[in-house]
Amino acid sequence: MRVAFQGEHGAYSEEAIFKHFGDSADPIPCASLRSVLDSVVDGEADFGILPVENTIEGSVDQTLDLLLEYRTNILGEEVVRITHYLIANPGVTMRDVARVYSHPQALGQCRLFLEKNRLEPVNAQDTAGSVRMLRDLKMMDAAAIASYRAAEIYGMKVLADHIESSPENYTRFFIVGMGETTPTGDDKTTIIFTRKGESWSIVEALRCLSDEGIKITRIYTRPFVGNPWSYLFYLDFEGHAKLGKVKEAMKRLESCSTLLKILGSYPKAKNPLRASN
Amino acid sequence: MRVAFQGEHGAYSEEAIFKHFGDSADPIPCASLRSVLDSVVDGEADFGILPVENTIEGSVDQTLDLLLEYRTNILGEEVVRITHYLIANPGVTMRDVARVYSHPQALGQCRLFLEKNRLEPVNAQDTAGSVRMLRDLKMMDAAAIASYRAAEIYGMKVLADHIESSPENYTRFFIVGMGETTPTGDDKTTIIFTRKGESWSIVEALRCLSDEGIKITRIYTRPFVGNPWSYLFYLDFEGHAKLGKVKEAMKRLESCSTLLKILGSYPKAKNPLRASN
Repeated sequence: MRVAFQGEHGAYSEEAIFKHFGDSADPIPCASLRSVLDSVVDGEADFGILPVENTIEGSVDQTLDLLLEYRTNILGEEVVRITHYLIANPGVTMRDVARVYSHPQALGQCRLFLEKNRLEPVNAQDTAGSVRMLRDLKMMDAAAIASYRAAEIYGMKVLADHIESSPENYTRFFIVGMGETTPTGDDKTTIIFTRKGESWSIVEALRCLSDEGIKITRIYTRPFVGNPWSYLFYLDFEGHAKLGKVKEAMKRLESCSTLLKILGSYPKAKNPLRASN
Repeated sequence: MRVAFQGEHGAYSEEAIFKHFGDSADPIPCASLRSVLDSVVDGEADFGILPVENTIEGSVDQTLDLLLEYRTNILGEEVVRITHYLIANPGVTMRDVARVYSHPQALGQCRLFLEKNRLEPVNAQDTAGSVRMLRDLKMMDAAAIASYRAAEIYGMKVLADHIESSPENYTRFFIVGMGETTPTGDDKTTIIFTRKGESWSIVEALRCLSDEGIKITRIYTRPFVGNPWSYLFYLDFEGHAKLGKVKEAMKRLESCSTLLKILGSYPKAKNPLRASN
């Protein structure tokens, strides 16, 4: 099972792959979220994994923007508890560290720690990749934020652990591929839509779902580029798009939308509230 | 009229100040959005201006998070059309440029231009501040993205203009202060709320407003930190919080919310769809 992810070995996305597919999975590192999707479309990977939202820092907007563009389907979701470590070269102590490299999401999740210790955050492409860079360049005045596994893989030292701003720190991932799923009885569906006309009533649109007894689990908006002050709505809700009541709701929603794209229906993650790993 | 803004002279926030308050306004540069609010609370500034959302890159989440925390009120909104320029030291040509410095929002708004020209984006605190840094450090292999005014102020050269991904590029700002407004007949209100219990129905909450005939103009969500998969809802809607029907809706909404904070009622921006400057 070849599964593409953004980052380098030791990334949190790679943890999500092992949790979802088991230890026999073959994770394929990619430079960007776009190249994760390209490798799925080209058949170089069987699946791709993409971070969607984090319980401290919020949405990963680039993932949502790409899912609108690509013809892949969401086939599953996974939740990983995120524990961050401050990692440096052996010999480096806290007082040597001036700058801290990591992915903006990870830096954001540790903002309170960085502010308290007066450490300058520096945006990088990747969490584990920042650890490798510190090692390769033998940097002795900087640290990186990444997983414990990243410290182990690259033979680096942990300066501080559990540095996230809240212990309730989880990242939700989508598993994407070219196939589709059949209903399991405990599924979710993700869609994007926009409303017709300028004076839309979002309440009316949401009632297409609530009138069918469908439980909405997430609402999120992005700007509808080219149409100032109009928005794309991303919805997660319970149920599978092949079920009668979801089909009915989608038919009603489509009739009052300029765009409706079903990004996929997939089995719910097993422990979305209290992931134990 | 002392108005605090984040950034350095030549920032888009400073343009918004002059558009809103006229040329006699006295803009006060601040290092961070937090220090903008601090200077309003401390009385060092009469007002502060904060970017809220952009029609390409979307929400400025830090502004929303700070408005939840501070006891200031939103007293007005302003919309500025954003035209980005690629700016460098005199003598630098396009082929010399490897890296481009700017605020992450500005880099995001010009992502297509950067990708097409294979230029590496580098996050900085500020648009105009990046131009000043290039000048101060005499960097000849880099450029910055900022306003035309920033190029003029710092005596720098424009390498390319109108480099934003869509010409429909506007940023909306909030004007904040310690006072409050009276209804003008053409106002908007911004609130934050969360729902009671885990299996909330957002549709029911929104009906508190729609049942009163109140038009919602923006819905946005942020994670409710410490409560995984719960969300803070930010709403903009038409009407003033001192009006009967808005008061009634807020009373109903409060009865089914764990948190409800009215961030302010303010006159609508004059040309939110087609700002002409």
